[in-house]
Amino acid sequence: MKADVILVSDTSMLGADLPSLTTGLRGLAYWEIEVTGPNRDLHSGHFGGAVANPVNVLCGMLSNIIDENGKITIPHFYDDVEAVPEAERTMIAQIPFDEEKYKKAIGVKQLAGETGYSTLERNSCRPSFDICGIWGGYTGEGSKTVLPSKAYAKVSSRLVPHQDHHTISLLFKEYIEQTAPESVQVKVTPMHGGQGYVCPITHPAYRAAEKGFEIAFGKKPLAVRRGGSIPIISTFEEVLGIKTILMGFGLESNAIHSPNESFSLDIFRKGIEAVAEFHLAYSTEK
Amino acid sequence: MKADVILVSDTSMLGADLPSLTTGLRGLAYWEIEVTGPNRDLHSGHFGGAVANPVNVLCGMLSNIIDENGKITIPHFYDDVEAVPEAERTMIAQIPFDEEKYKKAIGVKQLAGETGYSTLERNSCRPSFDICGIWGGYTGEGSKTVLPSKAYAKVSSRLVPHQDHHTISLLFKEYIEQTAPESVQVKVTPMHGGQGYVCPITHPAYRAAEKGFEIAFGKKPLAVRRGGSIPIISTFEEVLGIKTILMGFGLESNAIHSPNESFSLDIFRKGIEAVAEFHLAYSTEK
Repeated sequence: MKADVILVSDTSMLGADLPSLTTGLRGLAYWEIEVTGPNRDLHSGHFGGAVANPVNVLCGMLSNIIDENGKITIPHFYDDVEAVPEAERTMIAQIPFDEEKYKKAIGVKQLAGETGYSTLERNSCRPSFDICGIWGGYTGEGSKTVLPSKAYAKVSSRLVPHQDHHTISLLFKEYIEQTAPESVQVKVTPMHGGQGYVCPITHPAYRAAEKGFEIAFGKKPLAVRRGGSIPIISTFEEVLGIKTILMGFGLESNAIHSPNESFSLDIFRKGIEAVAEFHLAYSTEK
Repeated sequence: MKADVILVSDTSMLGADLPSLTTGLRGLAYWEIEVTGPNRDLHSGHFGGAVANPVNVLCGMLSNIIDENGKITIPHFYDDVEAVPEAERTMIAQIPFDEEKYKKAIGVKQLAGETGYSTLERNSCRPSFDICGIWGGYTGEGSKTVLPSKAYAKVSSRLVPHQDHHTISLLFKEYIEQTAPESVQVKVTPMHGGQGYVCPITHPAYRAAEKGFEIAFGKKPLAVRRGGSIPIISTFEEVLGIKTILMGFGLESNAIHSPNESFSLDIFRKGIEAVAEFHLAYSTEK
């Protein structure tokens, strides 16, 4: 366990002609929520209007978590959030980013999120809150007039550096449990989580990685934070006390974790070259 | 098709010692909603915070439909709602009703609904709005950090007499479609519906049914509206131009449509007697 630095190739670049190194990752907290209303599914005619419907209650609680400005309303949620430094915002603003192309690729007419931040800031440097799954009541063909006994959701929040996922996990659990109406019972189960990560661009290994990219791709890579999470990276730092260089070569068009996932042979070769050059530069610089 | 009146035994009584005749039924409207966000499930790390999540959007739209006083917010929803007559409210207030027992039977600590109305008014004379089913995203074991492409819900509204279910169906569809944010696509499919029904307690056949109950059960039945819907009753009236007497003998404890459904033999015999006496009384009175 005497490494100087860790090199991980599990990230992506801004584009094939836009090499980039990842300098930050978001953290993650994930919960499952179970809301129980009546002790059995009820006839919605006999009871509708008199008894709280756990699906209605769950929808209300979840929709209250994001306000009309896209801010997360959980008390103290933003306490440890580091403001995005002005220098970084300036750099992000200079990244060539075609919003129309981005929208077209995912098939949406309009983007959404926290006001006051650009799309690239929102999906990398700011926290987010998403319902990953929801279910309850009758979900089969046709219609059934039922006032369900149970409603469930799986929800997650991407966190930014300095937000501790254990703290956020607890804040959310307490908030949901304390704001739940007396007419239902609510159970929040934290599922898993991970800390965010930041790699300073002044780190010698970062500079070596930059050099590797420059030789292989012919241009200096941009330094960007990414919205995903690799929880073990912060664990590496915690346990081993060393930094990780995130030198990945994926592209949005690779469709990771989706059907027809792909990887270009040209990028593959350039990546091999960049990593080899990194080793050379780092051992020299060191 | 020359009947004078229709007798239907598909309703329940307030209790074994509390015979009652049903004088009104709620109507019903039912919809399925499909909300589409991105054209495929997205990685919640790469896109979370930048792209509208259709489950979050659906929860928001559905929770906006009921305000903090339990009122339905769809514009013009209450336009044709007949206020519960004071005389009927007085009668309802006199019905022996043990709220603690009611709550215990369904396992809830607190009831919920429209302020300003009692439980028995809310579940019979006032409209209601319930999510009957909801689903979207990852609903399996464990956790998956996904920003789903689709979210669905089945929702229904119980209506009161004079609310036309076709009108309400359209009002809801327009409201949801018009208030949906540009960041998603929304499709509302009306599923089915039925009109409410009222039987005047001055109708000769109603009085004959009252007499039948009195003889069989030893006391005059209470006149009560019920929250369920039997859409064909209003169709009978529309097509045949005749009223229906709702002379049913069910009890809450029968657990209709639930496991261990039952029917007491004693009530069965008394019911037979009441119906026979109804025929006798109605043919005489007529």
